[in-house]
Amino acid sequence: MIKPELLIEKMDTIRKQNPLLHVITNRVAINDSANGALAIGASPIMAEAHEEVAEIAAISNALELNIGNLTPYSIQSMMLSGHAANEAGVPVVLDPVGAGATSFRLNTVRNLFDELDIAIVRGNAGEIAAIAGANWGAKGVDAGAANGDILPLAVQVARRYHTVVAVSGTTDTITDGKQAYLVRNGHPLFPIMTGSGCLNGVIQAGYAAVSANFLEASVAASANYAIAGQIAGERSGGPGTFRQLLMDELYTLNAEKIQKYADLEEVKLP
Amino acid sequence: MIKPELLIEKMDTIRKQNPLLHVITNRVAINDSANGALAIGASPIMAEAHEEVAEIAAISNALELNIGNLTPYSIQSMMLSGHAANEAGVPVVLDPVGAGATSFRLNTVRNLFDELDIAIVRGNAGEIAAIAGANWGAKGVDAGAANGDILPLAVQVARRYHTVVAVSGTTDTITDGKQAYLVRNGHPLFPIMTGSGCLNGVIQAGYAAVSANFLEASVAASANYAIAGQIAGERSGGPGTFRQLLMDELYTLNAEKIQKYADLEEVKLP
Amino acid sequence: MIKPELLIEKMDTIRKQNPLLHVITNRVAINDSANGALAIGASPIMAEAHEEVAEIAAISNALELNIGNLTPYSIQSMMLSGHAANEAGVPVVLDPVGAGATSFRLNTVRNLFDELDIAIVRGNAGEIAAIAGANWGAKGVDAGAANGDILPLAVQVARRYHTVVAVSGTTDTITDGKQAYLVRNGHPLFPIMTGSGCLNGVIQAGYAAVSANFLEASVAASANYAIAGQIAGERSGGPGTFRQLLMDELYTLNAEKIQKYADLEEVKLP
Repeated sequence: MIKPELLIEKMDTIRKQNPLLHVITNRVAINDSANGALAIGASPIMAEAHEEVAEIAAISNALELNIGNLTPYSIQSMMLSGHAANEAGVPVVLDPVGAGATSFRLNTVRNLFDELDIAIVRGNAGEIAAIAGANWGAKGVDAGAANGDILPLAVQVARRYHTVVAVSGTTDTITDGKQAYLVRNGHPLFPIMTGSGCLNGVIQAGYAAVSANFLEASVAASANYAIAGQIAGERSGGPGTFRQLLMDELYTLNAEKIQKYADLEEVKLP
Repeated sequence: MIKPELLIEKMDTIRKQNPLLHVITNRVAINDSANGALAIGASPIMAEAHEEVAEIAAISNALELNIGNLTPYSIQSMMLSGHAANEAGVPVVLDPVGAGATSFRLNTVRNLFDELDIAIVRGNAGEIAAIAGANWGAKGVDAGAANGDILPLAVQVARRYHTVVAVSGTTDTITDGKQAYLVRNGHPLFPIMTGSGCLNGVIQAGYAAVSANFLEASVAASANYAIAGQIAGERSGGPGTFRQLLMDELYTLNAEKIQKYADLEEVKLP
Repeated sequence: MIKPELLIEKMDTIRKQNPLLHVITNRVAINDSANGALAIGASPIMAEAHEEVAEIAAISNALELNIGNLTPYSIQSMMLSGHAANEAGVPVVLDPVGAGATSFRLNTVRNLFDELDIAIVRGNAGEIAAIAGANWGAKGVDAGAANGDILPLAVQVARRYHTVVAVSGTTDTITDGKQAYLVRNGHPLFPIMTGSGCLNGVIQAGYAAVSANFLEASVAASANYAIAGQIAGERSGGPGTFRQLLMDELYTLNAEKIQKYADLEEVKLP
């Protein structure tokens, strides 16, 4: 059973080790993603040029691939960096933005899973359902469906691809196919901030960079991010101030706040 | 005559219908544009890849094309999505950023008008004047000229291209070539926020998505955006806090604020 | 000896002349860079298309080239605009982001120096050291090494390339190879804001646009930017609010604040 003490320990480890995160992401979320990585104590590098992505991925502590603005060029950037990361033992986190929206996106996600070892895949319910081959009725890339029934599909994806699946929503669902956790922290302003899911993916990479156990990393990332957002939401007057206070809270998060807010539950799998 | 009640009704309709907006825009404004769309209750999708733009435009409730960072690739994205939108009856909003700055931009705008049915074109005075073939002395893409004499040129563009023209400035001027409205709301910090005009264009698309009458949609979009900014400006300490409070105000705008602030005037055309 | 009065005079000149800045920069920093340029009273235009960059550079008051997201396409954009700027007598500012991170970046910086006249190069210690051919142990693109020993390397780069070198860090070091200044203003939150160095580069371009003496321009840019950040940092609750307050402070900076905060020192060179 994962306890708040583990969330605190992981948070502190990132601040101490200052891991280098290679992030390939979309143009909408790129600025918040870099700022959020800095706020938790990591060093982001957002390189996408074919000339350098393999070189950078190999020296990074984690690689995060986000398909929000897919182009044939960026797909190749992801493949080059992903292979280099896999060879160097650098964990790869995948954010399958809008996987259910077009066949172009879903095919790309399938190809990335086929070619690469993915440590953690983080998406909303619609995206994870699309990867599982189920129809979830996603709408746009910011779709946040209720999470009630997503666990069986998340387990299915985790087992098929030998990966940790983190489903973001009102309640986050995290599973490696053997164990599963729910994180009940969060705030209704999260889905009104574009790229808040994408930043979650980057933070997953920050925690994966300092952990051998990717299930623990993903639960800690999900919980600490949701707690920071919950506190930011309570202090904000809308999505604009929420976004800035979220960065402040990621930076000032501490043991006391985590102990006070953390709301985790382990779910037994059949 | 458009009254504040109509502005309130349109605002509520967006929040109820949650329209999907396909937005192709520049790298500077893309994050604020997505956040602003979410703040008014729409769902933005910022896809630009040729593999998927037609598919996405056809299932959207409006398409917004912004030429801020033109490339041959993005022009093709706009043509593909624009034709798909026209065929599917999805309204298209055009933001001709910097149309007067280079011949490359002006030619692109002319080609978009020739090939596509544009429901609303939103620009500053210099951009609309450039489309009309007049010399307005624009400076950079954030040029905000005084609007006094723009109405005849706006009417000319509206009639030539059978479109609604929304000219942003200290006073906004909106016309479909038959009727014209002035919106006197706003705040001096608007032009100090990069992409504030681009976000206006996205909001025009949000209102067009839920309206059969594009003149009404454009007046409501212009007024509600200007009112949100006016309130944000009164509360802010400069352009940084203005930008965040603008998002908060778009999200928390309500009937009471609109009734209190709305400053509309109908202008009789000759 | 440069005094606070000069910093005030330069600040006022930008606000009066409203220089047009052509900025080619990376996707992470592009929004903050445009907002920061507007906040100091300049007009930014972020064009990168080959069809128009030479035309825009030639009519601008300064050109800023930032290599944060290098691609073969953007390198060509920089070459085309750089040559046009040099021919038109428009000062060029270079920001060699991550110059030490990959050979692709370092080679690009060397080529830009070989082909173009650079008025000011602004980077952190690791980047300037890489240009000088020294090993500084940079980590990621946001590396902020202590600046103690960077002066000799900065002087070497300034003399080799006949340029002004501005090294950002806890203390900023600025030299043209004949004179050198230290700016001791700043705040620990600067390196936690992604693109804060990139915005510094844009502000250097704003000051270069209105100055014949690029050493004075660079010292004034460095000092005023650091002072605005210092005041913002004192008022902020973390990196999120810092970023917005920095924009507010750039916009509201005045003679009184500069007189109160400015902490400059001239260093004698051997």
